[in-house]
Amino acid sequence: MNQPTGQLYIVSAPSGAGKSSLLNALRGRLADVAVSVSHTTRQPRPGEQDGVHYHFTNVDNFRQQIADNNFLEYAQVFDNFYGTSRLAVDAQLATGQDVILEIDWQGAHQVRERASSVVSIFILPPSVTALRERLQGRGQDSEETIQRRMRDAQSEMSHYPEYDYLVINDDFNTALDDLLSIFHSERLQRARQQQQHQALLDALLA
Amino acid sequence: MNQPTGQLYIVSAPSGAGKSSLLNALRGRLADVAVSVSHTTRQPRPGEQDGVHYHFTNVDNFRQQIADNNFLEYAQVFDNFYGTSRLAVDAQLATGQDVILEIDWQGAHQVRERASSVVSIFILPPSVTALRERLQGRGQDSEETIQRRMRDAQSEMSHYPEYDYLVINDDFNTALDDLLSIFHSERLQRARQQQQHQALLDALLA
Repeated sequence: MNQPTGQLYIVSAPSGAGKSSLLNALRGRLADVAVSVSHTTRQPRPGEQDGVHYHFTNVDNFRQQIADNNFLEYAQVFDNFYGTSRLAVDAQLATGQDVILEIDWQGAHQVRERASSVVSIFILPPSVTALRERLQGRGQDSEETIQRRMRDAQSEMSHYPEYDYLVINDDFNTALDDLLSIFHSERLQRARQQQQHQALLDALLA
Repeated sequence: MNQPTGQLYIVSAPSGAGKSSLLNALRGRLADVAVSVSHTTRQPRPGEQDGVHYHFTNVDNFRQQIADNNFLEYAQVFDNFYGTSRLAVDAQLATGQDVILEIDWQGAHQVRERASSVVSIFILPPSVTALRERLQGRGQDSEETIQRRMRDAQSEMSHYPEYDYLVINDDFNTALDDLLSIFHSERLQRARQQQQHQALLDALLA
């Protein structure tokens, strides 16, 4: 029997929407789901492991992989490159795992153009007040800093119409159940089920 | 705020797959989901209520509704007509309820041609043995009758590739959870969420 292939997901959100906590909880509740490990040219920070937190590489190698069209998406932030390797993602999908890309709307835009099948989810905060509270952090930042974070969050949120699903993170467990339903139902789609249960389907129609 | 519109579903299955029990349980677990009530020209049986089990009508009226293109699907079985009224379904959808059509592959084929947006689910038995056991009923039927039921089931099942989702009814509660995930995730799709949360989306981007 062929190994079924996993589904590629994009999950985007503004800062303060709770994306990372939700995805960590999702991985604890659902088998066969992995978060993609990005490539970067920046230096490892203390405690960061190659292949776990990032694939660390150098600028020449990164530029060569851009030239080889090996990135589903990439971006330059100041002097450093960050990108998602098509080969690394395909290798994960081939093991049957669903793979999540935690990227912003610009990365999502690139991936949609370069990947054949992708499901995208946008996570939203439940209110402006909740967003502002989460962006205020521990109350040690200037009003100007918080205002800039709000503008960045609005800029990211303005792209929600480009996504397949919207999840509103009001109650954490409800939002987690929403994500679980999305991942579970995508696995029930006909093409996935045919991969998974071809022997049964053949027997029923024999 | 506009009332969000429900989603139209088709659920098909061969006899013996457990469709009716699953859909009854689904309605007990999920708010805002209704099963469509068909129109028929056959006589009510004892205990059947007009508008609950069927909309009972006469042949002239039924033929007029066919001519008016008011059926999403219909069929003639011996001397009786059965059909799903577009007006009745649209009225249910307009209240925000999801509406389920329990119909066979031929009805599903008609609905896909006549409805603008429909999600279709096919329920399968977990094995040939399980299907045969369920079709044997209480052991009072001839082998010939059971063979005919098996052929009918296979004929219906051969159309599973036309459906969006496949649910395998091995363990009842697992299959019920599968259906709940499908209905729940469809409500998280962007267009539905935009209908449901337009005020929030406007506020977040204001």
